[in-house]
Parts: sequence; structure tokens; C-alpha cells
Amino acid sequence: MKSFKIALAQFSPYIGNLEANAQKMLEQANEAKKQQADLIIFPELSLIGYPAEDLLLRPSLKKRTQKAFEQLSQIKDIVVVFGFVNETEDGQRYNSAAVMKDGQILGIYNKQNLPNYGVFDEKRYFNEGHQHLVFEYLGHKFGVLICEDVWSLATVQQLAQLNVETVLVLNSSPYEVGKPQHRIDTMTALAKQLNLNLAYVNQVGGQDDLIFDGTSFLISKDGELALRAPTYQEGLFVVEYEAEQQRYKTGEQAAALDTMAEIYQGLVLATRDYVQRSGFPGVILGLSGGIDSALTLAIAVDALGADKVQAVMMPYTYTAQISVEDAAQQAKTMGVTFGIAEIHSIVNSFMQTLYPFFGNSPVDTTEENLQARARGTLLMGLSNKFGNLVLSTGNKSELSVGYCTLYGDMVGGYAVLKDVYKTIVFELAKYRNSISEQPVIPERVISRPPSAELSPDQKDQDSLPPYDVLDAILYAYIEEDLSQDDIIAKGFDQAVVEKVVRLVDRNEYKRRQGAIGPRITSRSFSRERRYPLVNGWKPGL
Amino acid sequence: MKSFKIALAQFSPYIGNLEANAQKMLEQANEAKKQQADLIIFPELSLIGYPAEDLLLRPSLKKRTQKAFEQLSQIKDIVVVFGFVNETEDGQRYNSAAVMKDGQILGIYNKQNLPNYGVFDEKRYFNEGHQHLVFEYLGHKFGVLICEDVWSLATVQQLAQLNVETVLVLNSSPYEVGKPQHRIDTMTALAKQLNLNLAYVNQVGGQDDLIFDGTSFLISKDGELALRAPTYQEGLFVVEYEAEQQRYKTGEQAAALDTMAEIYQGLVLATRDYVQRSGFPGVILGLSGGIDSALTLAIAVDALGADKVQAVMMPYTYTAQISVEDAAQQAKTMGVTFGIAEIHSIVNSFMQTLYPFFGNSPVDTTEENLQARARGTLLMGLSNKFGNLVLSTGNKSELSVGYCTLYGDMVGGYAVLKDVYKTIVFELAKYRNSISEQPVIPERVISRPPSAELSPDQKDQDSLPPYDVLDAILYAYIEEDLSQDDIIAKGFDQAVVEKVVRLVDRNEYKRRQGAIGPRITSRSFSRERRYPLVNGWKPGL
Repeated sequence: MKSFKIALAQFSPYIGNLEANAQKMLEQANEAKKQQADLIIFPELSLIGYPAEDLLLRPSLKKRTQKAFEQLSQIKDIVVVFGFVNETEDGQRYNSAAVMKDGQILGIYNKQNLPNYGVFDEKRYFNEGHQHLVFEYLGHKFGVLICEDVWSLATVQQLAQLNVETVLVLNSSPYEVGKPQHRIDTMTALAKQLNLNLAYVNQVGGQDDLIFDGTSFLISKDGELALRAPTYQEGLFVVEYEAEQQRYKTGEQAAALDTMAEIYQGLVLATRDYVQRSGFPGVILGLSGGIDSALTLAIAVDALGADKVQAVMMPYTYTAQISVEDAAQQAKTMGVTFGIAEIHSIVNSFMQTLYPFFGNSPVDTTEENLQARARGTLLMGLSNKFGNLVLSTGNKSELSVGYCTLYGDMVGGYAVLKDVYKTIVFELAKYRNSISEQPVIPERVISRPPSAELSPDQKDQDSLPPYDVLDAILYAYIEEDLSQDDIIAKGFDQAVVEKVVRLVDRNEYKRRQGAIGPRITSRSFSRERRYPLVNGWKPGL
Repeated sequence: MKSFKIALAQFSPYIGNLEANAQKMLEQANEAKKQQADLIIFPELSLIGYPAEDLLLRPSLKKRTQKAFEQLSQIKDIVVVFGFVNETEDGQRYNSAAVMKDGQILGIYNKQNLPNYGVFDEKRYFNEGHQHLVFEYLGHKFGVLICEDVWSLATVQQLAQLNVETVLVLNSSPYEVGKPQHRIDTMTALAKQLNLNLAYVNQVGGQDDLIFDGTSFLISKDGELALRAPTYQEGLFVVEYEAEQQRYKTGEQAAALDTMAEIYQGLVLATRDYVQRSGFPGVILGLSGGIDSALTLAIAVDALGADKVQAVMMPYTYTAQISVEDAAQQAKTMGVTFGIAEIHSIVNSFMQTLYPFFGNSPVDTTEENLQARARGTLLMGLSNKFGNLVLSTGNKSELSVGYCTLYGDMVGGYAVLKDVYKTIVFELAKYRNSISEQPVIPERVISRPPSAELSPDQKDQDSLPPYDVLDAILYAYIEEDLSQDDIIAKGFDQAVVEKVVRLVDRNEYKRRQGAIGPRITSRSFSRERRYPLVNGWKPGL
């Protein structure tokens, strides 16, 4: 028995690019060696990245994996544990971990528990493994598990019975509010219960709608946290095992983030990774003087830098003067490119062209939608001409009830606040203002009553319940999966609940054509909530 | 042993509406009794419909299923076999069939083989069954299987070993080109191999992107086809088993459809069901004088009737006079409401508003997209004002390579030709003209070179390879999953293949925001091809 060092590589892969990922893993292994590490572990499926979706089914994946193994075989004098897709001779495909040293594969572990719920579709791609992997190294007995495995008590118990001292857990565990601490709490209890050291390494980075927060950690079998890596940061974290004390020495202890900081920084990371990895030079967004676009602008600037962000105010008859002022002020404070494009002539030309068709039909939301679509088309024109990605600014409350215009304010490639309820939008705006010397979002934007400004003196509350009530009903219906009757039974007004539920159900078609956006809740509108469009399910019980 | 009659209910459920489905099943059972049937079988999951997606996870499903069982218990004097979601006391959820008589459940079968590939996600929802169900009735031994089960030779063999004479197979098997005949051919071989009678009943109707074609059948154990129900039609089909001859008497033999008829009628069914079940009074589409919108119009009229269809021609500077003439002629021939809305003033107002931003930037596709988005916004305005659903008219070839404008010609709730390659669009147009006395699509629309008419003298072939080459490459890349290198090795021009593959990969973001549309191939752009947007996979091997 001797002392040794483990490096946890909190790694941000480029999904699908095995060559680039292997190269980066090689560099990280060399860096770990410089820090005297004996062992380096990478997250689940680190070679291709998670989730690679149907890329996992491409026939040439096996060849690409072999090539990447050749790259990794250049790593010398350190044991490397990493995730890869294991396609076997008998036609099976596993979500696997390899233990490699000096180009030799010492062992392969196939994930046993495949999540196939929520955002996960692993049974579409993988077969289940049925065997544990244990290896001795430096006089210490290691086991390997992959993500969902460690949430199955039966699986971990079996491994514990093999006299393993430290379990290396490779993860690609997506973020949701509170998840970083929840993992640590659960794993601390598990480590103590089974008397195991747990080295938990998690992927970091944004991938489409998923945020991976990292927050890797190492828990000693007595429940002591020997390492807590920072949330949302790529990096290499080395922990030492002291043979004499038979325990891991306490290393870096990154602070846990407060809820608003956790959400805000997650949105920043997701936006940065989406924009940069898609190859856009920058972003453009419509700045309305309202709080959603104001917060989106702040996130964009924090993600990319002011020089990469263009904001456009597109006023019309119903736009308040203070909206224009506040938009201009924020743009100035944040130092972004700002322009004003009035939409009167465009809306007029649409109305004139449609007049022969509309005749004397009464004015309704059609005319409001024309304003939103004029703005959407302007933003897309600027995007097409200069290459910046359009950020969509709608929040989860609006998207839930369809309080948004398809092809209008919904245009864009990334919807930063897609999974953020309006009540949380307010909290995030206040949080962002609290962390800089002068507020980046004008106070008036936060304090004035929300309005879409699509008709005279319009307020959101004219057609929607107050946001605290709306969000509570939405949370119960969407996140908690309660029925209409259940929600009414909780004490909410019957007519209001019926209206909200009906709107959520009816607006699935809008959400289906909306941009993707980062997931922060346990039930986002994405691969996680799959409802048919033609749908005869009646609200009620 | 005695003679008896089986009714196959080729049933079109309303997804999620268990009450309505149970009511219709009750009516069909009574109709079957009138025809002296002793047994009636419904498709897989007939009570909730297929696929119900995350409705299957709603907590109140169990109560709703119980209520529907009460409705069905009113059926007397006939054995009913139907599909339902079986949620057991121990928290398992199965895709099941019930055998019911006079309100008593005689047996329950839980599906053993759960497809979780392609368009299927059954492992997200269901546990696997592990037991066969066999019942004797009228001196005859029946077994029950559900859809995927009958494609597992091991499963069917086990059932055959229980001395079953007739297997009742409940299906919700989605259509793709040639599938109706393929099922019959495969099942004929299986019936003979295992000496089993197979009564195969399939769901019919459009459900979002899936078409269920019906084409139910009954094959005697000697391989004789005793029944072939028509493709795409709801109905009740009764077959008699003659005890003396110990075989099924030959009943209705619907003709197999030629390929183009099969596709065309499938698109008609899908469009009708989507529009009607979503509750739209009718549809509206942009008629450009090109073949895609011409074919979409014909399908819409055949699906809904001319009085439910509105067509709008939206000419601009680059629109040829013959385009306007041909559009007007087709609208007249088909008897649909037709209007013309010129878009010059709208495009001009956009250009003037954007001029201060664009400055002296050279003209590019931005200006083309403005035309497409002006048209999209006009269609959406008309849709919002009068309630008609916008049909999107793009084809699979265009969508594959992104030769279409997001929020422009891509607007709409249903994309009728989404899974139809351009070369098939031509075939379908000719087919449709061939079945009516006078052609409904003007000959010139079919014969002139395709053009988006977004810039002077533009032809599709200026920026794309000829459609027969393009479609062959797309088919190899998308349906056959060949790599770029594989396709080049087949003899296609390297530069052309590289360009096409790059375009397909890069335009995933457009497709992700596009309307749904009916699936007719083995690899549609829908739940069947799930690629990440941020995607570093390199073309090549």
C-alpha cells in the first residue's frame, strides 16, 4: 500500500468530435502527470461526449473510436479511465469505461443501469452490461461505475462486496436547480452506508438544451468531502490518497453557489457554449425595454463579451417612450452595439396588403402578431446579413401558455430563458444587478408592470393571472404532473386553473417549433416532455 | 369444435381520448354482433391510441382506463380483445391486451418485445411482459401477441409450442413505402413455417407525423390470405372459420395499391386527420406556380374538399408571369378560394428599414429570405384572422439541404411533403393528374425547370445538383446511413457529395424548427433522426 494521487478531469467535450476530444484528453493526462497524478478519470462517454444521440448509430463510429484509442495510447506512465462506446463483435453496443495504461487496455466496464426517462434515451442506443470491473493499482482496490449505476443501491452494494476501496464514477449528469448539492448529499450518505470512497467526475459544458455543471467531487468513506470542484468550470482536480492515514487528503473545496448564482451562471455557460461551438461570430437580440430581453442581454454579454452582442430596439405605436429610454440606457451601460429600427412602415405595408382579404373583420391578435413578425423578420435579416445568431428572449411562463408569437418574438436559434419562469426572471435580474457596482438592468425595467406593448395600454395581467399565481399553477401542472382537479384542490381559482391548463395543452404546437434553450428545471419543454400535437386528452381528473 | 366468426376492427383512435375511443369500440362491437361475429379484435393500445407519448405517464391514466373498462363492460355476448395500458399494483406499466367477455376480464397479455428504435420509444413507458396468454373459446385455441412480438421468431415459436391454432395480433404499425405488402409477405412465411393462423389487425389514421395504414389481414396456416382489408380505411372486417374444413373462409380481398397511389393516399389521410382532429375549419397555403405547392394543393383538396382550402399567390419582381397564370389556373380547376397579394411594398419597407444597418453590404440570400418571410407573415396573418391552418409546401430534398427559409416558406402547422423527395413529388403530380379526367396540376408546372424565383432567372439547379443526383445522394446518406466516403465510392462526384453532406449536417437547426409532416420513408426528419445541433462529427469515413 502506498500513497497516490487521482486527477479528476472535469471535461467539456465537443460532441461527436472524437479526434478533438482525444487530443484534449491527451493534453489533460500530460498535465495530470506534471501534477504527479497516478490516475486520471474522465466523465461518462468522454470520447464522443454526452449526449451524442443518433451519432451513436453511425456505422463508422467503431472506426473512429479505434482511431481515438490510438491517440490515447500515446499517454504514458499514468492510468487513464475514460468513457467510450464499446461496440462488440457480437453486435452489442455498450456505454463503457476503459482502464488504459501505456496504450494497453487493462479492463472495460459496461454500464449496467441505462436511464431511459426524462431527458435520457439510453436504451435507444445501448445494451445493458452485467459485470463489475475491479482492478488493483498501487496496492489499492478500485471499482468503476457509470452515472445511473451509482443511483442503484443494488449495483453499488454488489461492487462493495468485492472489497473495493474507491469507486471511480464517470458521469454526464445534467444540471437542474439544486442538483449539484443533491448529488453530493446523496453520495455522502452512500459512501458512509457502504464504507466506500467515491470519486465522482462529471462532464461540464452546455450541449444544446442540456447544461452539465461539473461540480465533481471526492467523498471519503467516512463521509468527508475531500474535493468539491467548482460548478461550471472546466479543470483538472488532483486529490491525494495518504496510505498511512488510509484516507484522501482534503483538497480544493469550491464554494456551493446560491440558487440565483447557480441558475445565472448556468445560463451564461449554456449560451456561450452554444454560440461558440456553433461557430457564430456573435449574437443579436431585440431589446424591448422589458425585463426578459434585458436579462437575456445581460446573460449574452456575460457569456460572450459586449463586442459580440448587438441589440436592436424596434418601436411601434404602442411602445412607451420609457421602453426606448430604458433599452438605450441598458445598451449603453453594457457597451453593446445598439440600433433603433421603427416598424411602422412595415406593419402598414402588411396591413395594406391584407386589407382586401380582411375587409371589415374586427381587430384581434392578428394585428399584434404582425408587429411581432415584423420584428422577427428584421432580426433575421440582420442575422442573415452579418452572421450573428438571434437570441430569443421569451420565458417559460409565456411559452407555457402561448403568450408569444410563432415566427415573431419566437424567432431565434437559442432561447436563453426558455426554461425560466417569469418570477425567476425577476429574481435573476435583481441578482445580476446585485453583483456589479452599478445596475446593468435599469431599475424601472424591473419595477414596471410587464407588458408586451402590442396594443394600447396593454399589460400582461390583462390576459394572464398575476405571475406568482400563474407560475405556481404551471409548476404544479408541468413539473409536478398534477391534474387540473388536483391543482384546484390545492386552493387555486377553478376558472384560472382551467384556463391555464387549456392554454398549456393548446400551445404545444408553438413550443414544438420554438428554439431550443437551456434546461434548468426538472421538466423542461424539450426532449423531456413529449406530448402529441393531435391530442384528445381532456383536462380534469 | 364449431364454426365461428372473427371481426377485425381496423380502428382509428383519437389519441388520448379514452372515453371517445371506448364509445366507438362499443359501437363497433355491437356492429360486429349484428354481423354474427363471436370475437372482435382491436389494434394495439386501442383505448388510448398510438403513440400517446408522455400522456402515458400522466398519473390519472389508471383512473381513466378503469372508467373506459366500465364503458366496455356494456358489451355483451361477444369476446372483445383490445389494447390498453396495464398499470399494476407493483408499479409496473405494460403495453397490454385484454380479453373481455360480458364485462369480465378473461385474460391479460403484456407485450414482451418493446421496440425502442426508429420512431419507437416504448422502453420509456413500458416494462416487458414475460408470459404468454392462451385461451380456448368455441373449441378453438387462441393466442395473443402485440406488434413487435410477432417479429420475434423466438416469441412466436414459444406461443406455437402451446398448441395455439390462431394468433390474434394487435398492431399499431406505422406506414412506410411498401410496408403494407412487406407485412403480409413476412407474416405469410411465418404462418406457414409455424403452422399458425394469424389474424393481424392494425390501427388506421394519421397521428402527427405517423401514418397508420390499416391493411389488416388474416392468413391461414397454409399461407392463404383469407382477408386483406383496404389500406387507409377505417372499417370492420369479418372472417369466418369453418370447423369442418378447419380453415378460414376467404373473405374481402382489397387490392394492393401501386406505390404512387399508396403514397398519395397516405398523405391525403394524414393531412385530413391532422387538420380535422386539430379542429381547424380548413387550410391555407401559398401557391407559387411551382410543383411543390401545386401538389400540396391537390392533396389538401382531396383531403378536405375544395371549400375548405384557400390558396394565395404572392408575386414579386422575380415571379414569372407563367407562375401566376399556372397558379390561377390550378386554383380554378380545383375550385378553391384564390387570392393574389403582391409583396413589393412589404419587401420595400423591410429593405428601407434595414438600409441604415446594411449600408453597402452586397446583396446575398438575406434579400431572398425577406421575400420568403414577407410571404410567410402574410399567410400567418390570414391564418390568424380566419383560423385556417397554414400548410407548408417544402419537400424532403429542400429540407435536407436547407434550401428553404426558416420563418419564410417554412411557416405552417403541417408540412405535407416533408418526407417526400423532389423526384417523388414529380411522380406524385403525374399520378394525381392520371386519375382525373382533366389534369388538376397544369402540365407546365410539371415540365418547367424548378425555381424558387427569389432572384433574377434563378433555377434550383444553379445551386443544387440535378434532383435525381441530389436525391440519390440524400437517400444514401439519410435512409441508408452511408458515410461520405461510402457515397463517393459508389461513383458520385466527390465535390458534390461533400457539399450535400455538409448542407444536410449544417441545416439540422432549420429542420428542428420546421412543422411536422407525414412520414413515408424509413428515415424521416422527426423523432426518427435525432441529431445534436452542436455537433462536431466530421464527414468522411
